[in-house]
Amino acid sequence: MTTVPEWTFEFHGHRCPFMPLGYRMGLLAMRELGVEKEKDHGFFVIPELGVGHPQTCLLDGIQAATGATYGKSLMERTFWGKLAATFYHPEKGAVRISLRPEFQDEFGKNEFFAYRMKGVEPSKIPADVADASLAWTDTQPDEKVFKIERKPDYQFKRVKGSFNKVKCSQCGEYVFERYARLVNNELRCIPCSGY
Amino acid sequence: MTTVPEWTFEFHGHRCPFMPLGYRMGLLAMRELGVEKEKDHGFFVIPELGVGHPQTCLLDGIQAATGATYGKSLMERTFWGKLAATFYHPEKGAVRISLRPEFQDEFGKNEFFAYRMKGVEPSKIPADVADASLAWTDTQPDEKVFKIERKPDYQFKRVKGSFNKVKCSQCGEYVFERYARLVNNELRCIPCSGY
Repeated sequence: MTTVPEWTFEFHGHRCPFMPLGYRMGLLAMRELGVEKEKDHGFFVIPELGVGHPQTCLLDGIQAATGATYGKSLMERTFWGKLAATFYHPEKGAVRISLRPEFQDEFGKNEFFAYRMKGVEPSKIPADVADASLAWTDTQPDEKVFKIERKPDYQFKRVKGSFNKVKCSQCGEYVFERYARLVNNELRCIPCSGY
Repeated sequence: MTTVPEWTFEFHGHRCPFMPLGYRMGLLAMRELGVEKEKDHGFFVIPELGVGHPQTCLLDGIQAATGATYGKSLMERTFWGKLAATFYHPEKGAVRISLRPEFQDEFGKNEFFAYRMKGVEPSKIPADVADASLAWTDTQPDEKVFKIERKPDYQFKRVKGSFNKVKCSQCGEYVFERYARLVNNELRCIPCSGY
């Protein structure tokens, strides 16, 4: 059980059960691996979620709990459409945590989802209904909710970094070198390159 | 000038000037378009940033200010390596905001960046150096920092959503329909499919 900090709801924008569930998933991963919330750029989350499906709000909770944020380039989806994520630390290894199918089935019975299936946006769902789904989630023990798998052979290659940039010969804006493209012997940004 | 809420630093993990600059960029875009912080799923940010370059921290500030978060599937990079983003609302239109090259040149003279170029992680940079870069940024007027372009012809197609899911015939985990793959007439998730 976890009560998430109030600011995480402010970040997320609405009160739904999935953001806190992601927060809890993040805490669990950190405990499993023995790492602290990431201040800088040393802890990576590779979620198996995609787009165009519900419950991606998990990721905002994971960002908030772990500090492995999208903005710090520490989180990137695989687009596999699964409610799972692998957490990787170069010195501590990797762990995959997924939401058990049986839990997802139980979870789906919450009235909150009946509203969502009808297309009601989370912030428009009656507060007592949303709160009930949050309270129900909080009472579910970790072992019923999460499947935890150590991934001793997990391979993760960090992207090579560089501070170098050039000005695009067309628009005059800066572009970081990795993304500069050559057109008629001139360096351009991708939108100006036509590629 | 903007003083960001303290919780945004807690979310982000460290004190750097780029997260608050992104927050300010988000506020500016919302003001330009006349939209409020997004509670649900109706406002989109398409950042032109990539990976393996500095200053992506901008995106955490944008997430925090706009509520158009990665977890709510409202933010997705183009991987063009540019410090710019387009903000799109279906009813209010689109605006692109970029950091002016001249501002980037000035910004780069802050001592904070000398540390970063040497490979010092943001949380390890002396607090007075980080604070000085934050204070300097706060004194730069919007018109020196940001270029604002209305994009009346901007095309954005929202991904079609579905709640439907199936169990993968191999691992037994749920996968949302968009990502289910057919192998020998059996439905599998992508990792189990071999595709």
